[in-house]
Amino acid sequence: MAAAVILGTFAFAISAYAQSDPLPSWNDTGPKSAIVSFVERVTKQGSPEFVPEPERIAVFDNDGTLWVEHPMYTQLAFALDRVKILAPQHPEWQNVQPFKAVLDGDMETLAASGEKGLLELIMVTHAGMTTSDFEKVVTDWLSTARDPKFKRPYTELVYQPMVELLSYLRANGFKTFIVSGGGVEFMRPWTEKVYGVPPEQVLGSSIKTQFKMQDDTPTLYRLPEVNFIDDKAGKPVGINQEIGRRPIAAFGNSDGDLEMLQWTTMAGAPARLGVLIHHTDEEREYAYDRKSEFGRLDKALDAAAITGWTVVDMKADWKKIFKD
Amino acid sequence: MAAAVILGTFAFAISAYAQSDPLPSWNDTGPKSAIVSFVERVTKQGSPEFVPEPERIAVFDNDGTLWVEHPMYTQLAFALDRVKILAPQHPEWQNVQPFKAVLDGDMETLAASGEKGLLELIMVTHAGMTTSDFEKVVTDWLSTARDPKFKRPYTELVYQPMVELLSYLRANGFKTFIVSGGGVEFMRPWTEKVYGVPPEQVLGSSIKTQFKMQDDTPTLYRLPEVNFIDDKAGKPVGINQEIGRRPIAAFGNSDGDLEMLQWTTMAGAPARLGVLIHHTDEEREYAYDRKSEFGRLDKALDAAAITGWTVVDMKADWKKIFKD
Repeated sequence: MAAAVILGTFAFAISAYAQSDPLPSWNDTGPKSAIVSFVERVTKQGSPEFVPEPERIAVFDNDGTLWVEHPMYTQLAFALDRVKILAPQHPEWQNVQPFKAVLDGDMETLAASGEKGLLELIMVTHAGMTTSDFEKVVTDWLSTARDPKFKRPYTELVYQPMVELLSYLRANGFKTFIVSGGGVEFMRPWTEKVYGVPPEQVLGSSIKTQFKMQDDTPTLYRLPEVNFIDDKAGKPVGINQEIGRRPIAAFGNSDGDLEMLQWTTMAGAPARLGVLIHHTDEEREYAYDRKSEFGRLDKALDAAAITGWTVVDMKADWKKIFKD
Repeated sequence: MAAAVILGTFAFAISAYAQSDPLPSWNDTGPKSAIVSFVERVTKQGSPEFVPEPERIAVFDNDGTLWVEHPMYTQLAFALDRVKILAPQHPEWQNVQPFKAVLDGDMETLAASGEKGLLELIMVTHAGMTTSDFEKVVTDWLSTARDPKFKRPYTELVYQPMVELLSYLRANGFKTFIVSGGGVEFMRPWTEKVYGVPPEQVLGSSIKTQFKMQDDTPTLYRLPEVNFIDDKAGKPVGINQEIGRRPIAAFGNSDGDLEMLQWTTMAGAPARLGVLIHHTDEEREYAYDRKSEFGRLDKALDAAAITGWTVVDMKADWKKIFKD
């Protein structure tokens, strides 16, 4: 009888633990401990590492950190689809690169067009309309487009462990921001629903916009001109410009996040967390790092060893990648 | 006995009303009613004008809307003081305009140097240092500088009715933002303490910054180059860039706020609030509008009549201007 009571209590305790575990998709390995320990230290009143709630700013890269970025950035897949949709209005594209390459599905020639080619694609597909029209184009595309490998909508290919982490941090008084090299207006239509991150907490690259009164209706028109590239050294610049406060935790997965992690963790303050997501799971997602075209992780991986950033091994540290 | 009870209850009710009035420094005139009615309509569940909490974005201009902007913008007073402090390191300024004019206290020549002269002053006083150093310079200056008319620190010359309004809106689920033509890094060191508006909800004009690793310490260095002017048509552009959501209420006081009020109120949605603060109180503060150098209110005042924006007459509508 006594044994049954003890066993019952034990089972209850385990079940309560499982229910209360805020990071159920994380294995009980090093990275989970490092994250939980950090959160406990900065939120414990009277602890030497305590951080007041308004200063608990956490920043997250998007592509490859919160959602899939292979076989190519989702925004690039969007741009390629848009070129195909707009092609009938641009018969000249049949003979002009990089448009011809897109229409022929010739990815090698497209890649050879480099940054200049990519920028041309972005401009014809992202500019020349109002901000409201662009939002609608993005939303419509996301509702029908499917990832080629997983055959699921892109907004379902977000990493479940990271979605849990975002919630866990917010439950502990953190304000969570996205700081991405991707276009800010490509992300804002869906980040609130998918990640719980509202538009005003999403930073990204942008093109210029112009204010116009059109028939008594105020509009913002998207111009084919780069405004800001929120990548590499641009990330701390963007964080300072739009958040104006130094984050205490930063999460990335590539060399594009190196400066953001430096800016966050190397300021001499006691408790700072830097985390890199390492794509090691060819079976459940992808495996890539130092030689990848998209999301190259090379310099930042070397820096992690020196600075003590936490490296998440997706295969070993995550119970699942996506929501079932 | 019964009468005493009734009188007592009545006195209690009045006192409870006075205590619960969230806008005690506002007279019970039109603008207060318009504001309270708007807030009640957008926060009432089931009302046709109900706005969900995440969409309750309110934007406020700063100079002349939240604090005093005469006899000149506070940031200009800061720049002039900085020129005087830095002058010993720049003997050449004795003979070069607009610096000579500043050192001679010759405001006429300074004004004649126009926007170009002003920009030169801003660059030598605001750039050429790290963001942390600039924050310290601003904080130090504000702790000792005094306004010439009121002989009080500038951060005490904030409008008490507007401070109450910011709190009232936040208590009703609004997120309050500052959207100012002033420098964003001139405001962020004190807006949280003075207005309850955290750095990440302050938008303003900015100069470019550059990320550098200096002896293993990441720094952002302020460059003498304009990044963004958050004024006039720049205000909706900045709002879209950094907030990414259209406000439902906007508060300004000058032609610099015209486009922000248009963007906020003229989108066809049912409940939108546009408010202009009209400086009409020469005795307690200043009286100025269509011809003022600082905070000119001319086109926006004409627009208010057509669009139905609420115009606050500071003399008639505010019980007090500053905190006692």
